[in-house]
Formats: sequence, C-alpha cells, structure tokens
Amino acid sequence: MASHAILTTLNDQPGMLYRVTEVLARYDANIQHIDIVHEPHREAEVYFEFASETPIEQIVNELQIVPGVMRVDITQSFGTVYGKRVVIMGGGAQVGQVAMGAILEADRHNIRGEHISVDTIPLVGERDLAAAVRSVVLLPRVRLLVLAGSLMGGEITKAVEDVRAKGLPVISLNMAGSVPDAADLVVTDPVQAGVMAVMAVADTAKFTVERLKRRVF
Amino acid sequence: MASHAILTTLNDQPGMLYRVTEVLARYDANIQHIDIVHEPHREAEVYFEFASETPIEQIVNELQIVPGVMRVDITQSFGTVYGKRVVIMGGGAQVGQVAMGAILEADRHNIRGEHISVDTIPLVGERDLAAAVRSVVLLPRVRLLVLAGSLMGGEITKAVEDVRAKGLPVISLNMAGSVPDAADLVVTDPVQAGVMAVMAVADTAKFTVERLKRRVF
Repeated sequence: MASHAILTTLNDQPGMLYRVTEVLARYDANIQHIDIVHEPHREAEVYFEFASETPIEQIVNELQIVPGVMRVDITQSFGTVYGKRVVIMGGGAQVGQVAMGAILEADRHNIRGEHISVDTIPLVGERDLAAAVRSVVLLPRVRLLVLAGSLMGGEITKAVEDVRAKGLPVISLNMAGSVPDAADLVVTDPVQAGVMAVMAVADTAKFTVERLKRRVF
Repeated sequence: MASHAILTTLNDQPGMLYRVTEVLARYDANIQHIDIVHEPHREAEVYFEFASETPIEQIVNELQIVPGVMRVDITQSFGTVYGKRVVIMGGGAQVGQVAMGAILEADRHNIRGEHISVDTIPLVGERDLAAAVRSVVLLPRVRLLVLAGSLMGGEITKAVEDVRAKGLPVISLNMAGSVPDAADLVVTDPVQAGVMAVMAVADTAKFTVERLKRRVF
C-alpha cells in the first residue's frame, strides 16, 4: 500500500476530525500519524499520514467537498523530514553532554542519507522524570531513550522497565541509583553515550546493542 | 471547558479512529492533540487530548463500548510532561553548541516549574533544511526555531519567511547567506543563541525579542 501525507486546513469547530476520518475510513486508509495545529491567529491545520490502495487524488477530491474543509494539500511526510528520534532526559549538565555526542554523530549519519533527530528534556524530580519516561513510548518515531543524570532510581527505574517491556531500548549513564541496573546499556562518558545511542538506531552504522559482549562502558 | 488526556488501546484496523472521533464529536469535544502509536509487536495505541464540558468518566464509558476499543485510560497530558519546544536545526557542530546553551538554560527554568524541551536535527542541504523549516510549524508545542550553521540562504530563507508569517519566532546564528536577514534575532555565540532561545519562551524569564533595541549580538 502506498503511503501518503496530506495537510488539511479546516474550520476550527468540534466534529471536523470525525468528518475527515470518515472519508479516510471509507477508503480503508490506515492512518499512521496525525498532528493537529491549533495556533492562535491561524486556521486549524491537521496533518495526516496514511496508507491506502486508493489513488491519493481521489481521496483529496473527496476531502475537499467535506463541509468545513478549506484546503487539502499533498505534502512530504514527517518521517522523511525528521526521521527517527533519540530522546535524552535528565539533569541539564549531563543531558547537554550526551546531546553533544548524539548531535555530532547524527550529523555524520544524516550526511549519508539517514534522518535522525535528537530531542532532549532537562528535568528534575523522580515523579516528573518517571512520567516523562513512561510517556516517551507514546511519542511518534522514538527509537531509543538515554537517561542522563547522577542519581536516578525508584519510580524512574520502574518506568524504565515498563518502556523496555514495550520494546524501547534504554541507555543509562553510569550513575548512582538503580536505573543503570534496569537499562540495556550503561555508559560512563556522556559524549560516548550520545554517540552510541545514535549508532544503535542508524542504519548507516554497524552497532547492535544485543550483540555487545560488554554492557557497561 | 476542562482539558483531558486519554490513552486508548485499539484493534489495529482501518476505521478505528473514525469510530472513536465519532464519540468525541457527539460530546462536542474539541480535540487538541492526537498521537498514534504503531509499533511492531504492540497493540495500536492512540493518545487524545481534548476539551469538553461533559464529565470525562461519561466519555470514557462511551468509548469503552465502541467495537474494537480494548482499553481507555485517563492519563497526564504531554503538554504537562514535555511542555514547550525549542527546535534547533542546521550543521552538527553549531547545533551541538546551541543545544548545549539551550539545554542548560532550560534546566534552570524547568527547576522553577517551566516545562521546556530542546529538540534538534542536524541536517545538510538547502532542500532538506527548507523542508524541515516549513514542517516545524506543524509539530505540536513548538515555540521557537533556531537556525544554526555557517551558510544558509535561498529556499531556506523563503521557508524562514513563511514560518515567521505563521507566527513562529526564528533566531539565526550570525552566518553567511541571507537567513540572518530574515530572522527575528541574530546571535554570534551559539551558546548564547541557545540561552536566548529558551529565555524567549520561558514564562520564568524576563526576555522579550520584540522589546530588544538591538537585534544582532
């Protein structure tokens, strides 16, 4: 099935998404991604990625006649533009260093045709960090999580176990607390942790966490 | 209207989103955000944020009886967890330095109750960068864009003008090409550019780009 990306401009009123998804359902389109843009002083825009057997022009024509739909544009997919995401969370000092390693390594792979983004959030507190870890599996295109700090345990460790059970690999800095014991890989140097994180998700790299004989560096 | 966040676990088949949005439309819920999680070896999960006058329990009860809906959980909103986003794009060397400044500054504000994430993508090439700039206004919660490189112009400059016209402020490093002329603010030191970017979006900071007497630093 062919994949498509479209941007719709809509009246900002309840029920619009229902009307648009009705058209997509009618053509058995499998919706893979939606982003709703609700900015003040702008019309509402909704971006869709979906796969469908039906020619895209036919779906666009049907969408254009839905009441409340102002425009439909065929566009590039976010997957093509921003690609895979590596997410780094924790204390600002360490997150900055891991990000540096990850960004410089992502640059080397993106030049060779990869599309890897590096997203970070400096956060403090067991509860907030655990919530951020748990939510990361709900974000689109996230391929790996790095926990960067000096002390992490308790609820954060449970959250790491939860996201690993859902198939997300986790790299932890070597630090105090129980998070390193729960991670797939433990790295002491933050720049190296960032580099390894990107190598692990890049198709242009030969690096597989599962094949490593050592899991602590 | 009260804002709610729910996580639904669904059968992975076309038309599910249509059935779920039908329920939300029936209660005049204004959907603000959707994330679809399609990972191999996992059930499909769809995360919704919406505002509605109807008690959330009633909506959840209605959703649970929709055919194909396996679970509905009330959850924390992404806005609360990840907050505002500053996005940095360009060459790896500069993106890394800007990210460092932005992450360390975000840490200082997040400790005081802000929620600011710093997202980056190292990218090369006029066409790819212009596409990434244009798409950034479609990503949720993005408040500011920083362009970090040594030479940017042409299509990228047009893309900067487009996103500024849509209300997104843009900071450019001082560099060759026409992008600095099109930006709201031009900063020579990449670490300072990152710090200023975060100050500009933080409610905990006193820094307003519009009020600056100088626009080049």
